[in-house]
Amino acid sequence: MHQTEQVADGEERVRSSFAKQGLMATLGATLEKVSPGGVEIALRPTPSISQQHGFVHAGAVSAIADTAAGYAALTLMPASAGVLTTEFKINLLAPAKGDRIVATGKVVKSGRTLTLAQTEVFAENDGQSKLIALLTATLMAVQGRDGVSD
Amino acid sequence: MHQTEQVADGEERVRSSFAKQGLMATLGATLEKVSPGGVEIALRPTPSISQQHGFVHAGAVSAIADTAAGYAALTLMPASAGVLTTEFKINLLAPAKGDRIVATGKVVKSGRTLTLAQTEVFAENDGQSKLIALLTATLMAVQGRDGVSD
Amino acid sequence: MHQTEQVADGEERVRSSFAKQGLMATLGATLEKVSPGGVEIALRPTPSISQQHGFVHAGAVSAIADTAAGYAALTLMPASAGVLTTEFKINLLAPAKGDRIVATGKVVKSGRTLTLAQTEVFAENDGQSKLIALLTATLMAVQGRDGVSD
Amino acid sequence: MHQTEQVADGEERVRSSFAKQGLMATLGATLEKVSPGGVEIALRPTPSISQQHGFVHAGAVSAIADTAAGYAALTLMPASAGVLTTEFKINLLAPAKGDRIVATGKVVKSGRTLTLAQTEVFAENDGQSKLIALLTATLMAVQGRDGVSD
Repeated sequence: MHQTEQVADGEERVRSSFAKQGLMATLGATLEKVSPGGVEIALRPTPSISQQHGFVHAGAVSAIADTAAGYAALTLMPASAGVLTTEFKINLLAPAKGDRIVATGKVVKSGRTLTLAQTEVFAENDGQSKLIALLTATLMAVQGRDGVSD
Repeated sequence: MHQTEQVADGEERVRSSFAKQGLMATLGATLEKVSPGGVEIALRPTPSISQQHGFVHAGAVSAIADTAAGYAALTLMPASAGVLTTEFKINLLAPAKGDRIVATGKVVKSGRTLTLAQTEVFAENDGQSKLIALLTATLMAVQGRDGVSD
Repeated sequence: MHQTEQVADGEERVRSSFAKQGLMATLGATLEKVSPGGVEIALRPTPSISQQHGFVHAGAVSAIADTAAGYAALTLMPASAGVLTTEFKINLLAPAKGDRIVATGKVVKSGRTLTLAQTEVFAENDGQSKLIALLTATLMAVQGRDGVSD
Repeated sequence: MHQTEQVADGEERVRSSFAKQGLMATLGATLEKVSPGGVEIALRPTPSISQQHGFVHAGAVSAIADTAAGYAALTLMPASAGVLTTEFKINLLAPAKGDRIVATGKVVKSGRTLTLAQTEVFAENDGQSKLIALLTATLMAVQGRDGVSD
């Protein structure tokens, strides 16, 4: 198979799975980019995803950061596998505010069972981009479990 | 001041702040209990907060777990302080599914600047309760920053 | 098999494995208690395990906390399995100083492949005990890998 | 002050503090490189720092990774500050074995009170280098506390 086809297939797989995530639609998150081992997800700050001070809630930031990490991992997993997050840690460096919040997930190391991925989250404002959070996640490739694919 | 009044004040403070969190309303999360150093938040699984396999999304689980930890910390902070999460880690032990997801946050150690809190998340199903996630979070008491109170 | 024999076997297994850990001897750490799903390890503060301010180094605290978590997990694993740490997070709450540092590891949830354990670390001083660190760790049961047993 | 002098001063400060860490000497760890926001520490695998399977103990890996993160942070802190780790998380990707273990710490974001740093740990073997662990740490600048400087 050609490299281009692999990427295309991986992207289709991730896009199709992303579309099934009710939470991403609820948060207004969009899947921006998919490449082998890398996924970018964005959202726009609105009152419906805020915390009490008006910033984007850490939970919403974490949700797109975790999802970007998970799908980055999925792009390198066999077609028969589904992906589940087993743990993640996120450091929140600055309030999430601005025009747009962008989470860029990348695989650090993919293994047969466990994959480590890392996501940087940036706040874009007036054309400037600022790192506001850093997440590391362990993703598990799950095979043959009912209802768990992609 | 009497202990009962303190609790009542703390609860009022948390309830008022919780009501400002757009994300909690969007997720359908409800503030169940507030006590000094402890907060419980719940939500009901619906397709609008799902991940691709139909379970509640780890991001939604994390959002209520982080919020429970943060408000547990806030109950022990001075009235002049606002609370921000600086980092959290969550271990996801089992798929989040069932009748109701309940996050119980407790302060482990409160300090002048930093507080450590821990949240257990349970899935309730047919009257049974199962631990599905464990979160530890560092919360920061922020004073005198514009727009950051409670 | 009787419960008492199980505990005895688990303790023997952990004690035998602990004795192979060069680092524990180097740090002066001692294995205090072993029960199904629980392990306690202690060490005495000395200049040879200090950081620059004279406290016990976070690395030494982490080493006994991780080891207590790992062996707590091992007590619940099949005899054919070895245990490896895949990740841990530690929150350091106060300087590690006093007469004795004690790490108490407990299994939170044991699974076929992954186990979550948590360790509380206490500093004992003049008969008083103070929580100074909290660790959560994911342990992996490894089967059939050369050189990895217990 | 010239950039070169700053670096030299930062290096002297870190080298002097490192020399006070009893644990680093005990582990046989050496301070390899210091630059503004970056520190490299190495050690050689020996039985005295092993775990039960003969690999370098996760506690020893964590100790040098945490120390590299902490000193990377210190290079960007005011001369009046001391550095303390408030939390770290480490993902262990492969057994720590080989000719040499090298931890490379870098500041991700430095703040007035809190700094986030990240350390990559590599195992060198036969001229090849492999990523075996990834740590993220929150470091705190402590001012005016007895005995806490550098």
